[in-house]
Amino acid sequence: MVAGTRIEQTLLAAVHRGDLPGCPPRLAEALHHAVFPGGARIRPRLCLAVAHACGDDAPATADGAAAAIELLHCASLVHDDLPCFDDAATRRGKPALHRAFGEPLAVLAGDALIVLAFQTLAHQAVAHPDRMGRLVGIVGDAVGVPRGIVAGQAWESEPEAALAEYQREKTGALFVAACMAGAAAAGADPAPWRALGERLGEAYQVADDLKDVAAEADELGKPTGQDVRRGRPSAAAELGIEGAVKRLEQLVAAAADAIPASPGADELRTLVLSEAKRLRPKSLARTAA
Amino acid sequence: MVAGTRIEQTLLAAVHRGDLPGCPPRLAEALHHAVFPGGARIRPRLCLAVAHACGDDAPATADGAAAAIELLHCASLVHDDLPCFDDAATRRGKPALHRAFGEPLAVLAGDALIVLAFQTLAHQAVAHPDRMGRLVGIVGDAVGVPRGIVAGQAWESEPEAALAEYQREKTGALFVAACMAGAAAAGADPAPWRALGERLGEAYQVADDLKDVAAEADELGKPTGQDVRRGRPSAAAELGIEGAVKRLEQLVAAAADAIPASPGADELRTLVLSEAKRLRPKSLARTAA
Repeated sequence: MVAGTRIEQTLLAAVHRGDLPGCPPRLAEALHHAVFPGGARIRPRLCLAVAHACGDDAPATADGAAAAIELLHCASLVHDDLPCFDDAATRRGKPALHRAFGEPLAVLAGDALIVLAFQTLAHQAVAHPDRMGRLVGIVGDAVGVPRGIVAGQAWESEPEAALAEYQREKTGALFVAACMAGAAAAGADPAPWRALGERLGEAYQVADDLKDVAAEADELGKPTGQDVRRGRPSAAAELGIEGAVKRLEQLVAAAADAIPASPGADELRTLVLSEAKRLRPKSLARTAA
Repeated sequence: MVAGTRIEQTLLAAVHRGDLPGCPPRLAEALHHAVFPGGARIRPRLCLAVAHACGDDAPATADGAAAAIELLHCASLVHDDLPCFDDAATRRGKPALHRAFGEPLAVLAGDALIVLAFQTLAHQAVAHPDRMGRLVGIVGDAVGVPRGIVAGQAWESEPEAALAEYQREKTGALFVAACMAGAAAAGADPAPWRALGERLGEAYQVADDLKDVAAEADELGKPTGQDVRRGRPSAAAELGIEGAVKRLEQLVAAAADAIPASPGADELRTLVLSEAKRLRPKSLARTAA
């Protein structure tokens, strides 16, 4: 089964828990709204690609890890969009969840998605309990304290903070988890896969900064020009558009070089380089063409 | 080691993750504020008591389950107190977390506590991976969809809802999880332990309703008279104080009868009956004395 189908099916099965008897129907709707239709699903696809490179001997476990990471990503988007943070009006081309369902259900849907991530992981990894603890650890580290995305977001509440660093860490955390969990799900040592995640996370952050200045809102599914307006760190602002594009290319090359020796390393390298082309905003691709 | 010490030590080790390098200091403070000093720790003590009744052959695993349940309880208090829900000013005799640290950190601390619960469970159960999946399932069911505490809270966002039922379910969920997880942590079949949790959860709800009408705010650590003010279901309002006290006694007796056959069943029965006396508000105990 191709990766995209595996991911959507596992996510659908997870979110379907909300459709079971006893669940408040609007919460169930809110969960679907938060998860479908998705963005590029780049983190779970990365997770499955690494699992594949490591032999993917336990596909259900890898699917669980990939889905858990995407569910946590969706949860973070829902909570980040809340009025007390970004108060975003739109997300993935639709109204942000709290605009569509109200603030209480946005808080609760985010909470439910976090729980669902761990339930899905445990459920899917049931045939490989020996891998479960490590997977919960990897995924938990990416989201929680001391350095996961929740901690990254909390730096905005500190009187003095190196925002550039936290932003990089926050984006990087789930990319690191995607790579390490993909390896751990396939029974491989996850540690050597950290560097790939760190570089891809940084590349994605630079691409996101570029999109924020160069893309059109339609392409992004959320308002553009937000970073400058909020005084947030941006590679595009620091390096200029041309400099940021160059930095992106360097990071992708470094990521390809960071792929550890594994049965499918060559295939993964090709994939990383081809997928990286999609990171550049279309409007810049047009300019370059 | 006595149960109370085991619980506080495991909770402290969990929350201490926020004190590690890289964590925003105010988020770390907020986590301590949310978890210490605790209330009666009734759910984790119940979890350990059931594990003990089942032989407690894996104390670290039982500690993990107990701590996970308490961390999730603390998370739910923090999020329930948010302005978009109860907008509570105080909790456990201190300012509610969002009053002390602001709304963003209250959202994030709640999220971090949910993640921490699963990390703690996985970390503590590492020597018994075969029990981990079941434990994550039990704990996840108690919090998430379709019928966990998040779902219970989401009924308030439905146009038509049987609020009395949701309230019972919401309180009951963590009591059921405490009993079932205690059994599962000790390698016993958790299913027969559900009934004990359901009855104790209902007893606790009745006791809480009684406290809301009869206790003084100092004793409760939060404002009293909230249920009537918010039009929430209350056994004390439905049955009168005397009727509610009687109902509480019936539920405690039913709980004691529901304890499944197990090595420590008699001891647990004695404990349930003696602990139940603490459920009655002091002002009512004085009246009865």
